[in-house]
Amino acid sequence: MESISMMGSPKNCNETFLPNGVNGIKDASKIPVGIIGSGDFAKSLTIRLIREHYASLWDLKHLLVGKILVDVSNNTRVDQYPESNAEYLASLFPDSSIVKGFNVVSAWALQLGPKDASRQVYICSSNVQARQQIIELARQLNFIPIDLGALSASREIENLPLRLFTLWKGPVVLAVSLATFFFIYSFIRDVIHPYVRNQQSDFYKIPIEIVNKTLPVVAITLLSLVYLSGLLAAAYQLYYGTKYRRFPPWLESWLQCRKQLGLLSFFFATVHVAYSLCLPMRRSERYLFLNMAYQQVHANVENSWNEEEVWRIEMYISFGIMSLGLLSLLAVTSIPSVNSALNWREFSFIQSTLGYVALLISTFHVLIYGWKRAFEEEYYRFYTPPNFVLALVLPCIVILGKIILLLPCISRKLRRIRRGWEKSQVIEQTSGTVPHVSPERVTVM
Amino acid sequence: MESISMMGSPKNCNETFLPNGVNGIKDASKIPVGIIGSGDFAKSLTIRLIREHYASLWDLKHLLVGKILVDVSNNTRVDQYPESNAEYLASLFPDSSIVKGFNVVSAWALQLGPKDASRQVYICSSNVQARQQIIELARQLNFIPIDLGALSASREIENLPLRLFTLWKGPVVLAVSLATFFFIYSFIRDVIHPYVRNQQSDFYKIPIEIVNKTLPVVAITLLSLVYLSGLLAAAYQLYYGTKYRRFPPWLESWLQCRKQLGLLSFFFATVHVAYSLCLPMRRSERYLFLNMAYQQVHANVENSWNEEEVWRIEMYISFGIMSLGLLSLLAVTSIPSVNSALNWREFSFIQSTLGYVALLISTFHVLIYGWKRAFEEEYYRFYTPPNFVLALVLPCIVILGKIILLLPCISRKLRRIRRGWEKSQVIEQTSGTVPHVSPERVTVM
Amino acid sequence: MESISMMGSPKNCNETFLPNGVNGIKDASKIPVGIIGSGDFAKSLTIRLIREHYASLWDLKHLLVGKILVDVSNNTRVDQYPESNAEYLASLFPDSSIVKGFNVVSAWALQLGPKDASRQVYICSSNVQARQQIIELARQLNFIPIDLGALSASREIENLPLRLFTLWKGPVVLAVSLATFFFIYSFIRDVIHPYVRNQQSDFYKIPIEIVNKTLPVVAITLLSLVYLSGLLAAAYQLYYGTKYRRFPPWLESWLQCRKQLGLLSFFFATVHVAYSLCLPMRRSERYLFLNMAYQQVHANVENSWNEEEVWRIEMYISFGIMSLGLLSLLAVTSIPSVNSALNWREFSFIQSTLGYVALLISTFHVLIYGWKRAFEEEYYRFYTPPNFVLALVLPCIVILGKIILLLPCISRKLRRIRRGWEKSQVIEQTSGTVPHVSPERVTVM
Repeated sequence: MESISMMGSPKNCNETFLPNGVNGIKDASKIPVGIIGSGDFAKSLTIRLIREHYASLWDLKHLLVGKILVDVSNNTRVDQYPESNAEYLASLFPDSSIVKGFNVVSAWALQLGPKDASRQVYICSSNVQARQQIIELARQLNFIPIDLGALSASREIENLPLRLFTLWKGPVVLAVSLATFFFIYSFIRDVIHPYVRNQQSDFYKIPIEIVNKTLPVVAITLLSLVYLSGLLAAAYQLYYGTKYRRFPPWLESWLQCRKQLGLLSFFFATVHVAYSLCLPMRRSERYLFLNMAYQQVHANVENSWNEEEVWRIEMYISFGIMSLGLLSLLAVTSIPSVNSALNWREFSFIQSTLGYVALLISTFHVLIYGWKRAFEEEYYRFYTPPNFVLALVLPCIVILGKIILLLPCISRKLRRIRRGWEKSQVIEQTSGTVPHVSPERVTVM
Repeated sequence: MESISMMGSPKNCNETFLPNGVNGIKDASKIPVGIIGSGDFAKSLTIRLIREHYASLWDLKHLLVGKILVDVSNNTRVDQYPESNAEYLASLFPDSSIVKGFNVVSAWALQLGPKDASRQVYICSSNVQARQQIIELARQLNFIPIDLGALSASREIENLPLRLFTLWKGPVVLAVSLATFFFIYSFIRDVIHPYVRNQQSDFYKIPIEIVNKTLPVVAITLLSLVYLSGLLAAAYQLYYGTKYRRFPPWLESWLQCRKQLGLLSFFFATVHVAYSLCLPMRRSERYLFLNMAYQQVHANVENSWNEEEVWRIEMYISFGIMSLGLLSLLAVTSIPSVNSALNWREFSFIQSTLGYVALLISTFHVLIYGWKRAFEEEYYRFYTPPNFVLALVLPCIVILGKIILLLPCISRKLRRIRRGWEKSQVIEQTSGTVPHVSPERVTVM
Repeated sequence: MESISMMGSPKNCNETFLPNGVNGIKDASKIPVGIIGSGDFAKSLTIRLIREHYASLWDLKHLLVGKILVDVSNNTRVDQYPESNAEYLASLFPDSSIVKGFNVVSAWALQLGPKDASRQVYICSSNVQARQQIIELARQLNFIPIDLGALSASREIENLPLRLFTLWKGPVVLAVSLATFFFIYSFIRDVIHPYVRNQQSDFYKIPIEIVNKTLPVVAITLLSLVYLSGLLAAAYQLYYGTKYRRFPPWLESWLQCRKQLGLLSFFFATVHVAYSLCLPMRRSERYLFLNMAYQQVHANVENSWNEEEVWRIEMYISFGIMSLGLLSLLAVTSIPSVNSALNWREFSFIQSTLGYVALLISTFHVLIYGWKRAFEEEYYRFYTPPNFVLALVLPCIVILGKIILLLPCISRKLRRIRRGWEKSQVIEQTSGTVPHVSPERVTVM
């Protein structure tokens, strides 16, 4: 039986990284080099803390020949060194089998035991035999090993615990930028404009009304962007007449963060609802109301009912609730465990069909909110269009694009392409050789 | 070592179905027959697209003798063919070992790799050895293989990715029917009736008020149905004096979709809350309010306070929030990963005890809403009872039924039955033979 | 091949505990002793119901020598017997290999099959070989076996299905006590006080207003307690100058239920929001409003606008929504499957950084609510401070504590300690021996 050595230490260093029940392995972070413990799977387990001290193992080289060294180290920054720690270790000990793994295991997971915490560990090694042994070891320790192939994957594995919402960064930056822009836009139109024109001080509107004009615009824009990427991918496939052509990188990464865009859209929509529901609670609303009552009494208007306004708001609220209801279904199916309980058909029904219905209904929600005001000059303050006009641009483009894709002639062609048909199908006749097949994403919502 | 061939292609066809890191397997959908790639576990991997072309493999029959053929194909409709694709393949190649599997893996899962997507694959084969080998293969590919036994399960496996919310269909159809009925019912009573009687045009009530009278009735009816099925099951067990008698099929399937009924009930309750919270935001509310203020001033009523009305609404809202709070706990524990973190005792405490409390509180919510109006003639428009009277029927039956089951004499008997006691316990005395024991569901909430 | 016998029966007893597809195992609860079925992994499977009858297996002792007996029994109370059932069985059959396992499998899991239900089974045995065999068996039955080591763990395993929200008990009791106290406190101040002083009957305030004064105080207190435990742990580490010293038990268990405290805080905050949103729907609000309109008309006040009050409420609502938004992010990442999709850095960013921001914002929310009223004598009814003053005590302490910890000199020292530095680092120089290293939790939010 070969022996296994563990190099480096898991993140939040210094803790022993094996859960309760596995004895014989101790933290040796403060001993320059230690050969500690022995178990069924390891004759010697060496734990060292940081890459800088790898070389201090040099003296043990003759003892480590033919043995498996598991590099469990982590760095403090993404891509800190030109090569990964595990690859560096492999260059130091060419006669040992280097396996990268267990670095994603947190001290927290170790304390709670394998019942609660995330149990996936990523393992890679250029020595298939050694990799299999460590995978088996991981399985026995009640982790779920995931085989990532050759040692070249160790760079990715070492970066994993350092990532901070990689897929979220783009969408969050976008959402924050959109929110900032529309906040300033609304501020200028709804606070600065009345102040400049009529010396009317509406600064009290900033914390709630202006914010609540910003949120829905961001929400519907983000939702449109989710589906716009799919439309662009379909257009790309139609243009090149194949699904085997790689999408350009920007589209590829856009497609990959659709879930994040969608969830952010849902978040903004929910906060918009919270703000809207709080409107009647405000003191400002009460004062305006009391003043209206005073004026109605003084003007001696028995009935102030305005049927058009009543209908507008009833429809507006009604469509709003409906689209939020649909969006929350979409959000719930984004919870990993709900997601994995659905098959592909169910998932795509919810995310694609229901998603488009939600987009359509929220577009109506905005349209009804705008009503005829888009055509009244007084709403174009400082010659800028009202928020809801800007909010409608992207959704209308997406809905139009989707309608075009649903035209029988186009949808038939697209379906054929997605089943593997290609515009130019000559070379593939040479049986035996496999044409330009690549495992890209091909199914587009 | 035996060789493994893969037949058909995963759903959203044409993609290679093995995640990154496993080489040697390529998409061969466009080559009539191809023997492509070879790895540790497979000497030859044959991928073919559709069942119609299975026969074209005929020429390779002599090469496939004794080898494992994995059928990864999918159909386009549930139960499309008299026998499953895998069984058809087995009839074509009696000398090969046919294994069904991997068909639930989506192109999406393949692109994202085994980290994110659902990783369960269902595998069946009549050849135990071959099945074990493919199960091991699946495990090495980082899927979670689930052994479904003999090849006869392949029909079920092939239908799996085609299912569209199987368990949801009944409850959704029921909920939509109930909603339609109560919508029309309220529309006739609250819009048509005042129009016919007093020429009063209340059509503006349709989008919000009528909908908001429909939703809570559906919600509480669905919630009662969840617990009614359990009561019927208990009555059935009490009547036959055993828990080993199979429930009639309609009750069996009713019991199985309790989770769906409960979640739909929660969904309707939440939307009802959203509608209710939006009520004060409406323009109609504002106008009615202003008119009331006008009238109060003109009537010179200094204080319009009505203590009874105040108490009714305060209690009504309070009970509403409480039951929504409890229902949301029930909904959260329906998330698969939350659910599986609970043990059976915790789960049944939440779903059964808290569920009944929620039903009781929502019944009070409706009762307080109705108040004395159930006994006033003017609320029986067109001789129909008000919504809330209809809403109370089922919950009251369920609560009454539960109270009967909680009577000491009955609950004792039921507990004994559920522990295995039977009315007629004669034959079991013949030790050594196992009596009519069947692994049915026996625990009823 | 060794044979395997199953002792006892899974909880919700009497059901056979193996999912569909595994034949040969039948319920034998009503037969005193039965050797039933045989499969690939078991030559004989013996199922017995209750510990009291274990001795009746005595006659079969000679048949069971060298065989594996799986104890699948459950008790009805935690720590019902001095030793676990499995240990008792081991004492009866010293020549058999006793393995504990499968007792957490519910009848419900058995009926639904391994697709839906929780699939983790805990297995322990002092015989490593036998344990490995049963672990392998569990894996083949599509359960996820978790190895808990020697048979001494069987007590814990037997208690598992009997636990009822162990970690929740403390936090729930605390939350309920706090809620009761603050409810009575508010009741005395806001209902009894005006009744005693002015004979003013405000009893209608009990169901909503008093409850809604109680909920936010409990919510913010619980949230502070989450972070207070972390601060105390940091202070403890700073004081002793090491992270390897075990925390006192009360702090240890406080640290362990932070998630529960946080979720309860979120629950109370959400219900507080629901109550607040319902305020404008109340009949009492309407009457007060109409009376105010009446008075304004009679007092002939054209404009009742109060700029300070307007700003106070706008800011108050705004901060409230923000902190709820952040808290809901924290709550979502507590869903086990969302949680396990995050790496440690992301998790600690959300739970620690965002959590503190949420606490800070909710403190502002309370401060703005209080405004200048904390300094007005009339709010000190019966010489008691208003609710919001009490609500602010703990959050202010926590925020102050956190600021102190963020001071460069202190944070640097703390960081060093958490990386393994110790005040007294003499003994460790003796290389080869491992110092007082223990696998405690060391990372504190």
